[in-house]
Amino acid sequence: MTTHEILLAAQRAKAALAAADTEKKSAALLAMADSLLEHGADILAANDQDMAAAKGTMSDVMLDRLRLDEGRIAAMADGVRQVAVLPDPVGRVLSHVERPNGLHIERVSVPLGVVAIIYESRPNVTSDAAALALMSGNVCVLRGGKESWRSCDAITRALRTGVSRAGLPEDVINLVQGTSRASANELMTASGLIDLLIPRGGAGLIRACVENATVPCIQTGTGICHVYVDRDADLDMALDIVENAKTSRPSVCNAEEVLLVHEAVAPSFLPRLKERLVDDRAAAGQVPVELRLDEKAAAIIPGTAAGEGDFDQEFLDYILAVAVVPDVAAAIGHIAAHSTGHSDAIVTKNAHTAAQFTAAVDSAAVYVNASTRFTDGGEFGLGCEMGISTQKLHARGPMGLVELCSYKYVIRGDGQVR
Amino acid sequence: MTTHEILLAAQRAKAALAAADTEKKSAALLAMADSLLEHGADILAANDQDMAAAKGTMSDVMLDRLRLDEGRIAAMADGVRQVAVLPDPVGRVLSHVERPNGLHIERVSVPLGVVAIIYESRPNVTSDAAALALMSGNVCVLRGGKESWRSCDAITRALRTGVSRAGLPEDVINLVQGTSRASANELMTASGLIDLLIPRGGAGLIRACVENATVPCIQTGTGICHVYVDRDADLDMALDIVENAKTSRPSVCNAEEVLLVHEAVAPSFLPRLKERLVDDRAAAGQVPVELRLDEKAAAIIPGTAAGEGDFDQEFLDYILAVAVVPDVAAAIGHIAAHSTGHSDAIVTKNAHTAAQFTAAVDSAAVYVNASTRFTDGGEFGLGCEMGISTQKLHARGPMGLVELCSYKYVIRGDGQVR
Repeated sequence: MTTHEILLAAQRAKAALAAADTEKKSAALLAMADSLLEHGADILAANDQDMAAAKGTMSDVMLDRLRLDEGRIAAMADGVRQVAVLPDPVGRVLSHVERPNGLHIERVSVPLGVVAIIYESRPNVTSDAAALALMSGNVCVLRGGKESWRSCDAITRALRTGVSRAGLPEDVINLVQGTSRASANELMTASGLIDLLIPRGGAGLIRACVENATVPCIQTGTGICHVYVDRDADLDMALDIVENAKTSRPSVCNAEEVLLVHEAVAPSFLPRLKERLVDDRAAAGQVPVELRLDEKAAAIIPGTAAGEGDFDQEFLDYILAVAVVPDVAAAIGHIAAHSTGHSDAIVTKNAHTAAQFTAAVDSAAVYVNASTRFTDGGEFGLGCEMGISTQKLHARGPMGLVELCSYKYVIRGDGQVR
Repeated sequence: MTTHEILLAAQRAKAALAAADTEKKSAALLAMADSLLEHGADILAANDQDMAAAKGTMSDVMLDRLRLDEGRIAAMADGVRQVAVLPDPVGRVLSHVERPNGLHIERVSVPLGVVAIIYESRPNVTSDAAALALMSGNVCVLRGGKESWRSCDAITRALRTGVSRAGLPEDVINLVQGTSRASANELMTASGLIDLLIPRGGAGLIRACVENATVPCIQTGTGICHVYVDRDADLDMALDIVENAKTSRPSVCNAEEVLLVHEAVAPSFLPRLKERLVDDRAAAGQVPVELRLDEKAAAIIPGTAAGEGDFDQEFLDYILAVAVVPDVAAAIGHIAAHSTGHSDAIVTKNAHTAAQFTAAVDSAAVYVNASTRFTDGGEFGLGCEMGISTQKLHARGPMGLVELCSYKYVIRGDGQVR
């Protein structure tokens, strides 16, 4: 099927899904999870082909994002099951007023309609996105990356088998056939056929959507996340947070890319940082973190000299840009100039400084004394997530079920005129 | 100043407005209202020039939208004052959870930042938009229509004088100098400098924004609104509602453009409709409504034969397209095919039919037994409004202060890592 034909099929499937109650949607999700496990062998075979084709063309970190195994398939099925028991976001009365003229005005949550998701290497996004779309009453049109296409196709087939068994049209879950740039552009410009487009991927994909999309679009994911270690930081805590934010999973968008250190604590903190992230890791046989240092940091510890671009880059790797700043205001200014508005953190024991930071930093998630790695639908209690919005319209931060809904006003009268 | 210079000035003014508390914003709004009244003569002189230039180039209905007088200026000032006493939408804690790991996750409302509004003939939009933007902590960049430019400029000068007296930078309210298509395009593509673009105007403007905008954009206003008179309608009520929806102010977006009548009541209803909207109005010296009838309606009453385009047009005039339908499902189908998703109404005494209609009609406002003319921020209790969204993302229906805000997550921990 062409992308246009898929979009028309998606439109036709809308009414049946909108009419499905919570019970029917939950049953479909459980059937999808079962079907994923049943088709595990097919999915792994497809993933093996994807991995074989990708080997040598991408970094180990990116290969890890592409790889599936039985554990990850089980995790995908668990993720789908978790969505099945989340509260149905559709049909909630969000507000109700009776006006002086006797009109009853109700605001009721409704699905968006057709949600398109363009994503890159991680194939498990397929089931996450399909599950969240289904529970929120939205037909989804998925478009995976070229490296993961075979995996995504096998996962989609399994999911469609599941929804079909549960009595919903299989066209409530759709995968665009092929991964050409033209197919992405076709989604971006399908005005009237797509109610929301969510690009999940690298900066290039996001930029293409911003520049070309004529359908409503949410920017997601690009994370140049900062941790600022304040003069009043607990330096042990700061070390743990920076290590976790940088090294626990460097390939994801909520990983730290830039460390800012107050000049008063830099001489004591940076040598400990180098020991923890470089020396200890090397001694333990782990990948040491490459430190890219501004001039002031380079005067304290050895490392690579940071180039200008190093403070505007999502490394997604064991690389950390480090700058020394004179005060919290300078840290806030640096973040305003370089952050992608995803997740930024301060480590400080000073409540006043923390309040200044959280008020001024204009990012989706602003942390005090915690790792940026928590910006995640699951960690925020949303079940799982459709992506992390870095724009301010509609949804910001992790998008769960509620963020995949719109609302409408229903007004009941007895003949009121104006 | 060039548009780009204005946008940079707007960016510089953001921090001062974001830091202003409720009291300071309210004081600024009262000063803006006072300044509007003080500068009434300047505004009327500018409006006289606009009216003189426009005469002969637009319909009487459109001229009425452009015209200001002392009463309308007083109404503008009152509108600004009403916003001053509305609840501050910024800084509200929208949700708070403590996670099992001890993280406290708060969702807090914040301004969007810089909001641009492109509008057409009604100059009073200038003060409405500026007031709502200011109370919601947003710097506004306004771009009026070429017919109303002198009026908008005079109003903006008065408003800037007001905010300046209240101790805020006058650059929190800005008007683009000139009304060329290039200036509109410059706003549509000012990525990174505009957080939200709201086009308020005709279908051509909305389409241009959808096709060209690279900044987040909300479609507003185009209203092909339907009233469906059901088999089980109270026909007296239906007549009052249709008359009000069509004739009380035909130039606005919530006016009715299309009437659908159940075939069982069409023979009794349509002659009474013609009497009320055509004959009675003509006899009273009012503009009679031109009825554009489909074949079935034309078999019952005299009128103009409807062309295909008549069911897809926002007349904004004393014109009503009329079709006879076999049942509520056909009415729902017609609305799905032709509505702009603004406001659609059913008149019926049958609760089951009403429920079917409100569930299936996918518009911002769905009415039972009331006029579509109520779709309005004031009538909905929002104070005044920034426009009426006909898209599903972010805001739907009348946009008030809350709809001009985003949110951010503030996460407080004591060293949590993942």
